[in-house]
Amino acid sequence: MSPELSISRTVVLLGAGRLAQHLGPALQEAGHRVVQVWSRSAASAAAVAVQLPGATATTNATTLPAADLYIVAVPDAAVRDVLAAARFPDGALVVHTAGALPLSVFEEWPSIRGGVLYPLQTFSPGRHLDWPTVPLCVEAADAAGEAELLAVGHSLSHDVRLVNTRQRLRLHVAAVFACNFTNHLLGISHALLTDENLPLDLLTPLVRETIDKALAHPPFTVQTGPAARHDRPTLARHEAALVAYPGWQKLYKVLSESIQQQAAGAAQNNLDPL
Amino acid sequence: MSPELSISRTVVLLGAGRLAQHLGPALQEAGHRVVQVWSRSAASAAAVAVQLPGATATTNATTLPAADLYIVAVPDAAVRDVLAAARFPDGALVVHTAGALPLSVFEEWPSIRGGVLYPLQTFSPGRHLDWPTVPLCVEAADAAGEAELLAVGHSLSHDVRLVNTRQRLRLHVAAVFACNFTNHLLGISHALLTDENLPLDLLTPLVRETIDKALAHPPFTVQTGPAARHDRPTLARHEAALVAYPGWQKLYKVLSESIQQQAAGAAQNNLDPL
Repeated sequence: MSPELSISRTVVLLGAGRLAQHLGPALQEAGHRVVQVWSRSAASAAAVAVQLPGATATTNATTLPAADLYIVAVPDAAVRDVLAAARFPDGALVVHTAGALPLSVFEEWPSIRGGVLYPLQTFSPGRHLDWPTVPLCVEAADAAGEAELLAVGHSLSHDVRLVNTRQRLRLHVAAVFACNFTNHLLGISHALLTDENLPLDLLTPLVRETIDKALAHPPFTVQTGPAARHDRPTLARHEAALVAYPGWQKLYKVLSESIQQQAAGAAQNNLDPL
Repeated sequence: MSPELSISRTVVLLGAGRLAQHLGPALQEAGHRVVQVWSRSAASAAAVAVQLPGATATTNATTLPAADLYIVAVPDAAVRDVLAAARFPDGALVVHTAGALPLSVFEEWPSIRGGVLYPLQTFSPGRHLDWPTVPLCVEAADAAGEAELLAVGHSLSHDVRLVNTRQRLRLHVAAVFACNFTNHLLGISHALLTDENLPLDLLTPLVRETIDKALAHPPFTVQTGPAARHDRPTLARHEAALVAYPGWQKLYKVLSESIQQQAAGAAQNNLDPL
């Protein structure tokens, strides 16, 4: 985010989903030029390109223009298909943005230089994102590519890290627990209140305090609740209260067991004479 | 929190755990007088009482002093034992603070007036709590008790609600999902990073954005991640990455299935011709 140090790159964006919708404008604001947006859907490509002065929209990946960087921002499962369908100039620097895909996905296409630019954040339409705080995890097949991605990364964010394929997969799994699964639990909580006509804001202070505490201490050390204190009567009352929601009742049991196993493991460690 | 409206009450606190440690000082700050702290442990009672000028500590619940309000702030599973062991003056207003215990728990002791003062928050030693924002859920067996508990509640918090036993149980279950289970997932996430020597602050922006989003929209409508998009290759990679953590691998599967069932149910509802 130091304009005097950043050098403008030309970029082709392949993909027009949530990440591309956020990344395109961020790249332009950082001083780069998105010259083309590709998508399988012409309407989607156009919707992203129209926000990016100078960018054309296309559904044809075999006539991509020359550019300093090609960013494949499509769902993880589609990356390989896009790499196979697209024709990149020889020696092009092409990155994917997927947490769980190895750098080695590029090995099938030896004429391109592969890399990864993985933003560790959740992207939703219409939500403003503070890009300078988004951790960007960078990996590249060669030193020049790595330097290039670090430079582009630092033009977008204060927090750029070299993260290898193994670490990135671990991070992605951890992010699913911390983000996707957490959101699902909050959704269950929200639905349980809605069904009883209880006001939804009742839980807001509790959720805020839970997160503040979990970010300030190792979360396992501040675990509270009936499972952690082995309060069987309360666990039984809660399970009975969930009888109309068999899926969530099962989740309640599995999560309570996991909390108790964690606590037992920690106690074991404390007793360990080694 | 309007001192000119609040009337000072005398209070006996039964319990010396996390909630009592937070509640005692809050009551004093609100202008009430905690006259005695009872606990089975003399040291625990003394540790709470020493923070409350004018309060004595005791382990004898059969000679409790006269007071406007008796607050039983012990673990849910111990409330009945405390009620059985204590001798309250006839007509005493006695409340418990448990989410999952019905008001009817007091019916065995007809000489006391039962009530509930349930603070919907998580309490940890040493963490400052902003009492005015803590939702207080109040229930009482008689109208005078209800008025009394509303008055005491409003002296502590801006957010006091009349919540009956059925609603309170529902709230408590929802709070376990939103707080205890969420903390456990964040703990798993934290441990997964620690084991790979990854910096723990990497996930902070993601967690903050996840919570901000989940509190601003119905969480099920903003669900993201490999389960929500039925990305089987990524789900398989993640499960493989968790092979050294069989308990968390199981949780990963069960939570992913729950997300997919939720999405399928929502799609079903959208198609419902009624």
